Amino acid sequence: MKKGLLITFEGPDGSGKTTQIELLKAYLSRKGFEIVFTREPGGTKISEKIRNIILDNDNSEMADMCEALLYAASRAQLVNEVIKPALMEGKIVICDRFVQSSIVYQGIGRNLGADRIKNINEAAIDGLKPDITFLLTIPFEEGLKRKSKQRSLDRLENSGDEFHKRVYEGYMSLINSADYITAIDANRSLEDIHNHIVKIINDLI
Amino acid sequence: MKKGLLITFEGPDGSGKTTQIELLKAYLSRKGFEIVFTREPGGTKISEKIRNIILDNDNSEMADMCEALLYAASRAQLVNEVIKPALMEGKIVICDRFVQSSIVYQGIGRNLGADRIKNINEAAIDGLKPDITFLLTIPFEEGLKRKSKQRSLDRLENSGDEFHKRVYEGYMSLINSADYITAIDANRSLEDIHNHIVKIINDLI
Repeated sequence: MKKGLLITFEGPDGSGKTTQIELLKAYLSRKGFEIVFTREPGGTKISEKIRNIILDNDNSEMADMCEALLYAASRAQLVNEVIKPALMEGKIVICDRFVQSSIVYQGIGRNLGADRIKNINEAAIDGLKPDITFLLTIPFEEGLKRKSKQRSLDRLENSGDEFHKRVYEGYMSLINSADYITAIDANRSLEDIHNHIVKIINDLI
Repeated sequence: MKKGLLITFEGPDGSGKTTQIELLKAYLSRKGFEIVFTREPGGTKISEKIRNIILDNDNSEMADMCEALLYAASRAQLVNEVIKPALMEGKIVICDRFVQSSIVYQGIGRNLGADRIKNINEAAIDGLKPDITFLLTIPFEEGLKRKSKQRSLDRLENSGDEFHKRVYEGYMSLINSADYITAIDANRSLEDIHNHIVKIINDLI
């Protein structure tokens, strides 16, 4: 059985995850690696259907625990249909958000409790663990500023400043919470951050 | 704080749950009680959207754990939006299927493990417990026979005889598994079963 590499990116909206993922994908492709990229929620036909329910502003009456379980359901499908098969084939899988996002957004942001969300997600991912998680951190005010420049907001993004404050603090609490999590100050230059990420990846490959 | 009554019906397809629920609803209405009826999966706008994903034969690639988490998500919404508020108002809530169905269909039928499914659902229902659960039992062959007379089948009903055999055995294993579960032989006459149910309900009210 071959074994690929699971790389996840975490951080609040506006922390620059997407840009860093694009840079890393380009770098690894140039080096000849086969890459599978996923984003959450979504990434499979069924997960996209679930994503539509989660993010639809029309579903404003959604119970917090329903939201948490929908994220976990979407993730279970993604893990089974895409991530695990790709890892079995020795590929590099890069995920824009994974379990840590649920712990922060639903566990801490929605006040459902980090442990309860961990528990649900252990069922969803069935023993899978990232090889490395890059956690991009920005000051709370900076994140708000970047977000305010965005086009229309989805149901999660519309959850108010108190929610996003807790999310920010939740991310801070993740730093050093697991040996596979590397926190990176997202206020450094794009190139500086990219080089840091590449150095760590090269040590793993 | 007023306290209503939560009555759930469990049993394989073809065990006559729907008929007994109709008879009970009519009886309790005649007695002047306010009744809220729900069916799973579904029962709220959001839960019906989730139901569509679960039962759609087009989603044949659905991972078993995704299915289990979608049932739990649908239930979390139903509990928060409908069942708990109705119980707080002192109403009688009758559910066609509840947590035991997940334990049997996903935990045992899909081989995910009863404990894992219990765990997920404890998060979904957040401490809620039925006052009484009527478990209608029929021999396996009898259930198959009744099911074969049905119109088109949904994704769950299409899961094959091995799956439905495990579901049947799962239901058998629930008998006497909790003090609030009353098993009833569904081969008795409709009237006989109804009278049995009414007697138990009258003792509870």
